[in-house]
Amino acid sequence: MQRKIEVCLTPALINLYTITESIVVVIDILRATSSIVYGIDNGAEAIIPVAQVEECLTYADKGFLLAAERNGEVVAGYDFGNSPFSYTPDKVAGKTVVLTTTNGTKALHLARKAHQVVIGSFLNLESLCSWLKTQDRDILLLCAGWKDQFNLEDTIFAGAVVQQLRSSFVLSDDASVAAEDLYILAKDNLRAYVGKSSHSNRMVALNIEEDVQFCLQLNICTAIPVLVGDSLVALKK
Amino acid sequence: MQRKIEVCLTPALINLYTITESIVVVIDILRATSSIVYGIDNGAEAIIPVAQVEECLTYADKGFLLAAERNGEVVAGYDFGNSPFSYTPDKVAGKTVVLTTTNGTKALHLARKAHQVVIGSFLNLESLCSWLKTQDRDILLLCAGWKDQFNLEDTIFAGAVVQQLRSSFVLSDDASVAAEDLYILAKDNLRAYVGKSSHSNRMVALNIEEDVQFCLQLNICTAIPVLVGDSLVALKK
Repeated sequence: MQRKIEVCLTPALINLYTITESIVVVIDILRATSSIVYGIDNGAEAIIPVAQVEECLTYADKGFLLAAERNGEVVAGYDFGNSPFSYTPDKVAGKTVVLTTTNGTKALHLARKAHQVVIGSFLNLESLCSWLKTQDRDILLLCAGWKDQFNLEDTIFAGAVVQQLRSSFVLSDDASVAAEDLYILAKDNLRAYVGKSSHSNRMVALNIEEDVQFCLQLNICTAIPVLVGDSLVALKK
Repeated sequence: MQRKIEVCLTPALINLYTITESIVVVIDILRATSSIVYGIDNGAEAIIPVAQVEECLTYADKGFLLAAERNGEVVAGYDFGNSPFSYTPDKVAGKTVVLTTTNGTKALHLARKAHQVVIGSFLNLESLCSWLKTQDRDILLLCAGWKDQFNLEDTIFAGAVVQQLRSSFVLSDDASVAAEDLYILAKDNLRAYVGKSSHSNRMVALNIEEDVQFCLQLNICTAIPVLVGDSLVALKK
């Protein structure tokens, strides 16, 4: 049986897909899944995604780092948010981070019933695709979007994965065709293309251009975070 | 205040938009809204969209034509389905058609609370855009999709409208950027591009290539169907 690949453009559409036997790749390029990949690659022991800011607090006093982002900003009183620059080796190596974000952790929770949940970003694109090719499973690329809306940066990343996998998989929905075509338009200058995005404009307003640039780098990490129980840890390849 | 334009990629996302003060353009290129435009342009007095096949039957014995399509085929016992060739002047002029389709009529019902609901297709693209430019309202382009999934043909039509309106409106979401870019990729050969679509493959299986070709013609109609009460009638411009 030929494996299929599909793209779910926003978490609001997840119920249209049967995922219990599939691998779901969660995508929140700006910035949650980029930071998760970077953090795990830099030796974080685990990153625990939680849906609510309040849930983070239940992990206080356990020696964990607490990270909370809402509407693009660090929530007051937390160690940090979802900027990748908070996930450097000196900050996270050997540590466990409890993380909640506007879109990414919500998408992660919706994906839980999948056979396996892994984390994608441009930072680990090559490593992720190489591994996916070796798996005998259908794949759903789940874009976290922005508050249930379609967004450009998650979609073009999904398209990048589709392009790498298309020779080994069947493209079974129109969203994967569109995502790949948008990626092909974007790939020679990802930053300029993401600049067309309304979300990117929010990023400019938040003064995090460095984060955006960082998250659009290709293949600077090899780690593939995978959900095991309640925690994201490094996949053993 | 500058008017904005947004694209809702599937009916499953309609609740993310505030439409009470907006004009909603319902789009179901293959084939419901193409046939509705063609039918109204050919002098149908009204087309009454209903959500359920059974609802059509309540209009029996009133002298109406009954049209029902499910999964691309005419429902047994009905006068016709949603092939545009059933909406020629000899069949529909002066008549009222009661119509239910898999996706298009569902999208229409979801759009009802808008300030105004009009029908778009490649057949009336130019006429529709000219009229929209004269309206002092925000616009939502609502793609009917396929069973709540994103589809390529409705999205590229939305992109064609975005391209025509972008100088007079603000693009306020990423979906409108993506739709326009996909349209630009598709526009020199709409049929080939729609051939990349999974829905189009269903069309091939249903042996309705002529319908697909017909629905991708540009500007052969000037009518703009508008929802008045329960009926779609010709907009008086």
